[in-house]
Amino acid sequence: MNLQAIYHKPKSNFCYAYNENVIHIRLRAEKGDIKKVFLVYGDKYNWNEKQELVMKLTCSDDLYDYFTIEVTPKSKRLAYYFKIEGDNETFYFTEWGLINDINEKEVYLHFFQYPYLNKEDIHIVPEWVKDTVFYQIFPERFFNGDTSNDPDKLTKWGELPTSDSFYGGDLKGIINKLDYLEELGINGIYLTPIFEAPTNHKYDTKDYFKVDSHFGDLEILKELVSKCHERGIKVILDAVFNHCGYFFEPFQDVIKRGEKSPYYDWFHIHKWPIETNPPSYDTFAFTYYMPKLNTANPEVRDYLLKVARYWIDEADIDGWRLDVSDEVSHAFWREFRRVVKEAKEDAYIIGELWLDAYPWLKGDQFDAVMNYPLMRALLQYFAYENISNNQFKELINKIIMRNTMQVNEVMFNLIESHDTSRFLTECNKNVKKLMMAATFLFTYIGTPCIYYGTEIGMEGGYDPDCRRPMEWDKRAWNLELFNYYKKLIKIRKQNKVLRRGSFEWINDLEEIIGFIRKYEEEKVFVLINNYNFDKKVTLKIDGKYIDVLTGEIFKSDNNLDIDIPMYSARILISYNNK
Amino acid sequence: MNLQAIYHKPKSNFCYAYNENVIHIRLRAEKGDIKKVFLVYGDKYNWNEKQELVMKLTCSDDLYDYFTIEVTPKSKRLAYYFKIEGDNETFYFTEWGLINDINEKEVYLHFFQYPYLNKEDIHIVPEWVKDTVFYQIFPERFFNGDTSNDPDKLTKWGELPTSDSFYGGDLKGIINKLDYLEELGINGIYLTPIFEAPTNHKYDTKDYFKVDSHFGDLEILKELVSKCHERGIKVILDAVFNHCGYFFEPFQDVIKRGEKSPYYDWFHIHKWPIETNPPSYDTFAFTYYMPKLNTANPEVRDYLLKVARYWIDEADIDGWRLDVSDEVSHAFWREFRRVVKEAKEDAYIIGELWLDAYPWLKGDQFDAVMNYPLMRALLQYFAYENISNNQFKELINKIIMRNTMQVNEVMFNLIESHDTSRFLTECNKNVKKLMMAATFLFTYIGTPCIYYGTEIGMEGGYDPDCRRPMEWDKRAWNLELFNYYKKLIKIRKQNKVLRRGSFEWINDLEEIIGFIRKYEEEKVFVLINNYNFDKKVTLKIDGKYIDVLTGEIFKSDNNLDIDIPMYSARILISYNNK
Repeated sequence: MNLQAIYHKPKSNFCYAYNENVIHIRLRAEKGDIKKVFLVYGDKYNWNEKQELVMKLTCSDDLYDYFTIEVTPKSKRLAYYFKIEGDNETFYFTEWGLINDINEKEVYLHFFQYPYLNKEDIHIVPEWVKDTVFYQIFPERFFNGDTSNDPDKLTKWGELPTSDSFYGGDLKGIINKLDYLEELGINGIYLTPIFEAPTNHKYDTKDYFKVDSHFGDLEILKELVSKCHERGIKVILDAVFNHCGYFFEPFQDVIKRGEKSPYYDWFHIHKWPIETNPPSYDTFAFTYYMPKLNTANPEVRDYLLKVARYWIDEADIDGWRLDVSDEVSHAFWREFRRVVKEAKEDAYIIGELWLDAYPWLKGDQFDAVMNYPLMRALLQYFAYENISNNQFKELINKIIMRNTMQVNEVMFNLIESHDTSRFLTECNKNVKKLMMAATFLFTYIGTPCIYYGTEIGMEGGYDPDCRRPMEWDKRAWNLELFNYYKKLIKIRKQNKVLRRGSFEWINDLEEIIGFIRKYEEEKVFVLINNYNFDKKVTLKIDGKYIDVLTGEIFKSDNNLDIDIPMYSARILISYNNK
Repeated sequence: MNLQAIYHKPKSNFCYAYNENVIHIRLRAEKGDIKKVFLVYGDKYNWNEKQELVMKLTCSDDLYDYFTIEVTPKSKRLAYYFKIEGDNETFYFTEWGLINDINEKEVYLHFFQYPYLNKEDIHIVPEWVKDTVFYQIFPERFFNGDTSNDPDKLTKWGELPTSDSFYGGDLKGIINKLDYLEELGINGIYLTPIFEAPTNHKYDTKDYFKVDSHFGDLEILKELVSKCHERGIKVILDAVFNHCGYFFEPFQDVIKRGEKSPYYDWFHIHKWPIETNPPSYDTFAFTYYMPKLNTANPEVRDYLLKVARYWIDEADIDGWRLDVSDEVSHAFWREFRRVVKEAKEDAYIIGELWLDAYPWLKGDQFDAVMNYPLMRALLQYFAYENISNNQFKELINKIIMRNTMQVNEVMFNLIESHDTSRFLTECNKNVKKLMMAATFLFTYIGTPCIYYGTEIGMEGGYDPDCRRPMEWDKRAWNLELFNYYKKLIKIRKQNKVLRRGSFEWINDLEEIIGFIRKYEEEKVFVLINNYNFDKKVTLKIDGKYIDVLTGEIFKSDNNLDIDIPMYSARILISYNNK
């Protein structure tokens, strides 16, 4: 047995409270190395009544197997160890490591513990997020609903953007297109920044309390949010708290008055007088017009927390996406969460984070992050075809195991954003591949997000090309794609199993991605063929199923042979109760 | 190479900010498996200027080698990966796992990150703790300084305690014995609970805002603290916040008025009316007279935070030891830390925690914990002799690697407490073994604590026997032990290298515990022989050294042969600058 491969830590993604009663436990071991793992658990003050359960081999990645189990400790106190069976050996895995035999009299010196399941420590995620399909809008590029607030020099709608083009998109434009969004079926909108800022992307805030005048004003934002709410659409804004813009008043004051400015400690300034080239202060990347804010200063914290609260109170927004969230302090995000959840209990907090984000997703900071690791896996498998079926599964498993299940269930899943090239472009315009990736996105655990225009086949390379103005001429749309997106959204919304169900791979499906999700009595089999040849697979399945993509009905007592033509998918939903 | 054994996680004890500039990085691998590890690091926005450093194999435990390094990222942003060389192979270890080759163009998709070193996230520990030797007092058993406040029925001082004996010890008694404590040399006192409570141990608080009348009152506590401060002695109190006592007024109100009590949600009550046998509410262990407090209720949090602040403001105490800290919510402890550090910036917060305490020691909760894992290692090696020299070293290494270095540097190190049997009793009264364990305690990283009476040779089994009244009759003292303790304390206080120095084992010393500590120009070699036979060892050493235990002076240019008689130790301090 590879003893060094065995891993577990309490109070981590390997042992956490899922809800007020349930604790999830995971154990990692070398792939294929362990026959059976038992969880031996009980109350440390009443160890005599300990119990033993077999853990389940839930998934594997390239190097490891992951065994999991959930337990409901009666007294909310959990003490435990693992009994691990290999080919010819048994070990006990405790906090102090692996031992050959366990002395039950001294077990209190050994066992792992989740000492008490306190309610305040549980990561409670907003339920509505699970029922939401998001649509990300880059406001400058969606629709120009009010030409009276346009910037001076407009690039013609439809022309390719440069990094400083303006097209005149605004909040009124989004209001005008709510019918479109409702027809598409989405019920959540994430807007990139809308506060006063000189650039088109507005990640260089000038005034955190003012809607950019080219986008509208507070009243128009309120109208947008309330009209969205009337249609059951939630609205998330972008909080750019890592840095401000060059024209942010406190920064301007510091430029003017130097060390005498009352704001001199709002930034990280290394040398007076201030210089911008190169900047004598910390910035986002090395961008002089994005000075980093000093959240160690309580005034800055208070200011930003006021901003966070203001837009919830004033405009009734439903959550925040946090820009460059990994470079802002954990201490700040903890306060941010407290303030935001006080203002709106079920607000959704999403970090922009490209990394393994677990340090931010323990329940005290964010609810989820933009799932760029998932995007990367989808690109590799569906767009580039540079990983195998099996490697894709291993990657997805690795991503699942990074976080708690409640986080996975509200993860902000995406295939592209304003910070990446368009998926279709990465597919070399093969719309079918995009459709297959989207099928995965809409049937997988977590909340799908569509970047504006994906649904009609918009293309674009890396920024600024991925920020082209939305195509409103239907003649230029890929209608097959558009209809497919509408169908996927509808299917997800109609089937709770796709929003709440468990997730398990179907094994032994070469060249087909297949998984099962279950929720109460419902079951769904998802099969995706991302290749340019037809496949037939045999599923162990019994009962009546409908392929909600085609309407075909399947009945089987045991083995069901089913075709999956090239670049197509099956979403087979149990039909018994319908 | 055992790929599965290789472990690293950013933002954990494997990668953390040590101070405003320095990040510590650790990598774990199978013992003996890896020849060389390089850290390749840089700024993610300026990766071209990346650097490469060799990591040091700092220590090993039973299964693993730990490689460490510290880096000072210029921009406070750190991106990195590891280059790992085995016998015939080289791997790159990134966030996504091990790869054979690294594509530097796509490295941003791979590297580990400590995205930004924010000041607020650094775990700053109180400096004074490093210079402190603590003395733990169980006030009911230390000295009866005021017979007018005695409980009704006193057990005679000197008789063995039962679980409900009272002896009349009080705060005045401690004041009266400050000369004794100053002579001993300690400069920190930790008092087990002193607030109003019916039991002798007072872990069942009746009134958190009142000194127990058998112990004194607020004025006497203030006198005690101010007299301690005059002598340079810090005072820590015991915060029992997991549970209250049966006679705590809010609980009494709930008993009386049931669900109509305004305090009905201050506890975890499962059934009305309240029953005590078995309790129909959550308790500490299954003890009906210790109802668990509901820190999910903001009123309870506010109340306890007021308590925490009150005793700092009123009595000027220097920190809190937190009872049953593992069963109270992390959310509460975060607020607790904020309030306590606001009241006194350098207050010391120590959790009672018998486990791997890292989840509480990340900087947002405690500064340290009672180091019971260390105690266990010391018992096994020094008292029971049931582990080898090497196993002891591995255990200590494991304990070091569990936490950040700033935490290790203020760890509350102990060999016994009111919750364990006496070390001397566990040694079968072999005072020499206790002296050897104490030598380790006083020369090791972290803050030593003496449980009252250890220094004079008090014995005692598990509670209540370990809570015998202090022996004040000098004829009953073990004076050799007492003088040895005084000497150890003095040596520690006189030599900064023992309080601030680095720590490194001396290899190849069979049957002798040996380590080196270094601080600036100072160096100390500690050698401990815990066996009943004499030993001679050869040290690679040059320069002039004094054994501060015996006063002997040693000079060497290269190899120094040195005797370490049975049950004795050497503390060789570099003599150059004295």
